[in-house]
Order: sequence, then structure tokens, then C-alpha cells
Amino acid sequence: MVLAEIITIGDELLIGQVVDTNSAWMGKRLNEIGIKVKQITSVSDDSAHIISALNEAISRADIILITGGLGPTKDDITKKTLAEYFKSEMYFDEDSYKNIERLFSERGKGVSEINRLQAMLPVACRPLKNSRGTAAGMHFEKDGKIIISMPGVPYEMQSMMEDSVLPELKNKFNLLPIIHKTILTHGIGESDLSELISSWEDSLPAKMKLAYLPSPGLVRLRITAMEAGNSNLEKEVESEAEKLKSIAGKYIFGYDEESIENIIGNLLVNKNATISTAESCTGGFIAHRLTTIPGSSRYYTGSVVAYDNRIKEEFLNVDPSAIEKFGAVSKEVAVMMAESVRKKFKTDYSIAATGIAGPDGGSEQKPLGTVWIAISSPDKTITRQLSLGKGRDRVIFETSQYALNLLRTLIVS
Amino acid sequence: MVLAEIITIGDELLIGQVVDTNSAWMGKRLNEIGIKVKQITSVSDDSAHIISALNEAISRADIILITGGLGPTKDDITKKTLAEYFKSEMYFDEDSYKNIERLFSERGKGVSEINRLQAMLPVACRPLKNSRGTAAGMHFEKDGKIIISMPGVPYEMQSMMEDSVLPELKNKFNLLPIIHKTILTHGIGESDLSELISSWEDSLPAKMKLAYLPSPGLVRLRITAMEAGNSNLEKEVESEAEKLKSIAGKYIFGYDEESIENIIGNLLVNKNATISTAESCTGGFIAHRLTTIPGSSRYYTGSVVAYDNRIKEEFLNVDPSAIEKFGAVSKEVAVMMAESVRKKFKTDYSIAATGIAGPDGGSEQKPLGTVWIAISSPDKTITRQLSLGKGRDRVIFETSQYALNLLRTLIVS
Repeated sequence: MVLAEIITIGDELLIGQVVDTNSAWMGKRLNEIGIKVKQITSVSDDSAHIISALNEAISRADIILITGGLGPTKDDITKKTLAEYFKSEMYFDEDSYKNIERLFSERGKGVSEINRLQAMLPVACRPLKNSRGTAAGMHFEKDGKIIISMPGVPYEMQSMMEDSVLPELKNKFNLLPIIHKTILTHGIGESDLSELISSWEDSLPAKMKLAYLPSPGLVRLRITAMEAGNSNLEKEVESEAEKLKSIAGKYIFGYDEESIENIIGNLLVNKNATISTAESCTGGFIAHRLTTIPGSSRYYTGSVVAYDNRIKEEFLNVDPSAIEKFGAVSKEVAVMMAESVRKKFKTDYSIAATGIAGPDGGSEQKPLGTVWIAISSPDKTITRQLSLGKGRDRVIFETSQYALNLLRTLIVS
Repeated sequence: MVLAEIITIGDELLIGQVVDTNSAWMGKRLNEIGIKVKQITSVSDDSAHIISALNEAISRADIILITGGLGPTKDDITKKTLAEYFKSEMYFDEDSYKNIERLFSERGKGVSEINRLQAMLPVACRPLKNSRGTAAGMHFEKDGKIIISMPGVPYEMQSMMEDSVLPELKNKFNLLPIIHKTILTHGIGESDLSELISSWEDSLPAKMKLAYLPSPGLVRLRITAMEAGNSNLEKEVESEAEKLKSIAGKYIFGYDEESIENIIGNLLVNKNATISTAESCTGGFIAHRLTTIPGSSRYYTGSVVAYDNRIKEEFLNVDPSAIEKFGAVSKEVAVMMAESVRKKFKTDYSIAATGIAGPDGGSEQKPLGTVWIAISSPDKTITRQLSLGKGRDRVIFETSQYALNLLRTLIVS
């Protein structure tokens, strides 16, 4: 197995000013071509610390990818540090300079002195062209290990990876492809799910590993498989995913990069059907999720966010006596909201949600996190009561997740 | 200087399925109380590798914060690994079990066997309560170093940090307080802002550092100050912030942890005023932002999300001939939406937004990112045209930012 490590350099990462998104991007792309990332290390702009992190990484991995610290200002010390590490003189690299000139002339400017110095590179490296920025990448080798330094600006690093680093690594190593399959579940917790599928999990072949990735309102299961010379591996993974579907299918709403909102979008487009929403406790969040999907105007007409009970009564035909009798957070009110918006907005489907997001408003009978959702279709209106506990943001998110998934199951049923 | 290191554990980080946002959050909070993060290390769910990373971190830092791998399933091995590392037996922790029971009962469920096992903890640790999840945190000490293991779910880790870890660290170490003051600006880019305030920036005393933190629709300026034995430091920072206000006040909408939505909430509560919204391109996102604030039902009545033009006409009294003449994305339509929802929902203020979020629907006259916003008050209705360019999510977010800030300026004017 070919192993890589990632070292990201920059004070801004350690003081939490910037989230390191480069490592996840690189990890994903390396994994796809069959290179496993062993460790990700973030260190400050400090020469001694960069060198000790590099030495440790070299002791464990075949490939070290470094990002950051290649800018033109004083606090960028990666190039100088690597030149010292490889005991290398600097030279003026004509090709890199031409690239810098090109970038400046595209903006109608001449090259400034500090950017000119970016074309000075260690003799020990092979330069890698940066098509989108002024800092060249640097490819070093040492005792059979590969060390590559790239800029920290995400789109510059990404271009350099796609243009040169990934193709070269694929060429150099005889890589075993890694197959990933992610199964998206909703409506069952991590522990219940693991009990439900434990005999399937135990019978997985050794070449496949299973991981649980829980997040609020969602548990993802990831199958990872690797086997030399097995061109049938992808099919074998699919077949395990099929077995899983027969056990836990009622909780599975999608695969890999899908989301409930894009699945719903595709279902509605295929059916040529439309949807509207009536939201109380979710305050427009369900509408927001549906409309993050490009092209959602083809099926989504709109929403009445009825935070105030008067809005529920006047604009969603909720009977004031129902609110008095059952409360605003009740099955009856959720049904009236869903049926009214479906009729008024003339859509095929509708979603309604009413609940207590907190932190105030709970009671003994209806504690915080009590939510009623209703989904209305041309045939029927179905409802669910949720008990989501405390945490305003989480209650809003999980309500949207339950409501959208209930809609999905109704559409496909 | 007290040094900390962060170790994040999980295969999902190394294969790039999840971006490590925990480290940046922890780095920021540690920095604020005067603890410097030396290194961030991400490793896989592998016992030997976790232990070697821990040993290396202990050799460099005083405090090691570990997240991840505390779930109830088979791939979660952090607890077992730490028990081995500290050569510790396991015991059944009654308090942790009560916490697990409480969380299950809030959802009307009994505790399953595998969650019950989460109350088994190493004798060598002092448990840390997880108010939002079933995995307890663990506090270890070894040769004067502190090792703390926390869950990887961000909001669980964050609560544990705020509730116990940060207060305990502040107590234990004699930390040099770092004063931070963050100034929130909107409506001016990073480079224009830096030109506007350059002479103020140059005159800052050496004990204060300034950082620019740009993000879509917002540039934060952070003043960081540190000086031993200066009890007046906070006042000195405030005085610099006052000077900045006299230069760039028109762009400053708040300070520190404030958000436009909570500032608006406070303004409306103080005025005993109410607000409603009418949204097209933002699809409910403005409603969502307003209703993330606890207690927003005191001033927010609701929204009409009018994605479809028919909804604009039938429910917001938008004149069909205005749509025909000026287009749905126009000043005229934005004004009609704002005035209609304010009247219908009987509120003091209202916000309306209509625009082209893309990726389709742009034209030469109205390119992608063209947006009209309108704010209506008892006295008048004001409008703005925005040109936000491409990027659906960014257009939605920045529209909400401009609209909320315009409302804020109207309320305070």
C-alpha cells in the first residue's frame, strides 16, 4: 500500500482563523487513485517545526504533500526551509518567471520585485507550474521518498494536483484502486442501526471495511474495499450494498454525494409534480433547503412561514378553535397547515411543521423538541410526532430532515 | 507560554469525507484564553498510530486535546486505546450512565446495550459530562501533562469545551490574558477597508496586532493585545476600537460574537416592533436567519416565500403587469412585495428580496447575481440593487446579509 502524508503550514490554521479544507480535498483525491493518507499535520510558519514534522512524515510515508507558506511576504518561509533541508542553492527559474509575467500582464500590470523573487527556486527541486498563481510548486526526491510543496490557496493547489501531481503519482506507483460506497440513512440512531445490521457487518469479507459516520439527523455508512488484481471489486461492493438494502432499506434514503433535497428534486421533476411548504418552528429552513437546489423553481412554488398564530389562522385557514383545543403544536394544526398550503398554492405535495424549538415554550405535556409534521399529497395527508429534545438549531435541522424524508417516502411509495 | 496540541481521530478525516472543523474551533477558543496551539494532527482509527501521535504530542506540549472515536460502534477505538495507554481497568460510571438515560428518555426511549457500554470508562480518567450526547469526555494526567479526550461531533465537543475544559484550563494555568476585540463590517471589501484604515492601523501600539478575516458578505477585523501586568489593556483596546469607529463607522454593524440577526432582534424587542418577510430568490433563508434567534417569535410574524410568480401575484398583491413590464427581478416588484407583506402581516417593518441566484436565468441586461431588495417601515420603503455575480449559495447568503443590514440601518436611523 502506497502511503502519503499531508503537512499544512500556516499560523492561521493553528489560531483557528482558517479551517484547513485543503487536507480533506487532497485526501479524497489521493484515496480515489489508491493512495492512503496516513496522517495530516498542521504546523505554524516555523522552520524548525516544519523540518521536524517533515522528518517524522518521511519516516512513515512514501509521499509527503506540503501546502502553504509559498507567498511573497516575510512570513512565508516554506521555500527557504526546504532549500536548507535539501542543502540546496537557489537559481532563477525562467519558466516560473514567464508564468508570473503572464499572470501580471493578464491584469495589465508589470511584475513587482517581491513577485520576481518567487521565481528563485532551490536547485534540488523540479518546479511544478502554477497555472493560477505566482508561487511555483516544488518536487523533491530523497531516499526514494517524494516530497512535494504546493501553495496553500485552495484553487491553486487543486489545479496543480490535477495538472501534474496526481497524474505523475499514478504513473510512478503501481496503484491499487480503492472502492468507496456510502449509504445514507435516516430515522435510526447509530447504535440501533449497528444492532440491526450486525450479522451483515460481521459477514463482510475481510477486504471490506465498514465505518459509521453519524451527524444530526443522518447516519452515513461507508464501505471501503481494496484487493489487488480484483477487477470485480466494485460489483462485489454493490452486491453487499444490495444485501444491506434488504435489511435496512426502510432507513436508506440515498447513496454517496446525494442529499434528501436533491433526491426530492429529481423525484418531483420526473413526476412533473410540484410542492409547497407551511412552516412554523422551522421558520423557513425547509424552504431554504429545497431552494438550495439549482432549478428548484421547476417544482417549488413557495411557502407560508407562519410563526405567529394569527398568520396560521388568516393565511393557512387554521381554525382558531383547533389552536385553542389542541394547541398550535398538534397533529390537527399540522394537518390544516399542510392541506391549506397545498390547496392555496395549487401544488401536488406539501410539507407542514409545527413544534417547540426552544429554549422557551416547553411544558410537561409538550416538552422542548415536541414537533408535529404533516405531508399532504393528492391522495392523503400523513403525520408524525417527533420528540427531538433540546437544542434550537438541532431541532430545526432534524425537523427538516424528518419532514423531507417523510415526503420522499410518500412520493416513492 | 502554555502550549497545546490537538489530535483529531477518524478515517473519515484522512479520506476526505469530513473536513476537520473541530481543530479550528478549538484553536480559536484556546487562543482567546492565552493558550497557543503548536500542532494539529489527524490520524486514523488505528491504536498504534494514535499512541505514537499522542507520545509525540506529549513530548512537545502541556495540554493534548483529542477528539473523535468515542462512538458506540466497533470502529470507535479511542477509549480502549487510551485505557491501554494508561494501563487502566474499566469501571461502570453511574453519572455517565444517568446522562445517557436522560438523553434517551428525552426521546422517549430506553437505553440499548451498546449505549449502556458507553458508561464503561477507564479508572485512570476523570469523566467529563457530555450534556448533548452519550459519549463522556475523559480527563487524564501524566507527568504533569493534561490529556483530554472528547467526542468528535462538533456541538458535543463545543459544549464540553465551554462547560468544563476551558474553565478548568483557565483555572489550572496562570495564563496571560489575551484581549480580543472583533469589529464586524459589511459593505466594503478587504482591500478598500485596509486603505481606508491604513493610517489608524499603522499607528496601533506594538502590543496590538490587527488581522483581517474576510468571508462572503462580511469582513471581520480582529485586534489582539497582550501585555504582562497591564490591567488597563482592555480599555486601551476599546479606545482603539472607538477610533476605528470614527473612521469606518458606516461599515461597522457589530462586535465580537454578535450577528446581524441578533442585533436586529434586540433592536426590535427594545422598540416593541415587529417584522415580516417576502422572499423570492432567498427562498426562506432570511426567515431562517431571523428565526435562529431564541425568542424571535416576540417580533417575527412570518414570511411569504414566493418562488413562483403566481404566488407573488396572488399572495403578495404584485401587479402582473409590473412583472410583465419590469420583470420579476425589479425595484417595482421588490417594493410591492415588501409593502404587501408588511400590510398583510400587520408588522412595523418588512424585508423583500427578488433576484437571480442562478445557475440559470441570467440575461445580458440582468446577469446572474442581479438582486433587488426592499425594506418597508411605517415611514417609507427603501430599495437597493445588488450585483453579486455567480454562485447560487453565495448569492443567497449575501442577499440576506445586505437585506438584514439595510433593515438594521433603517431601524437605527
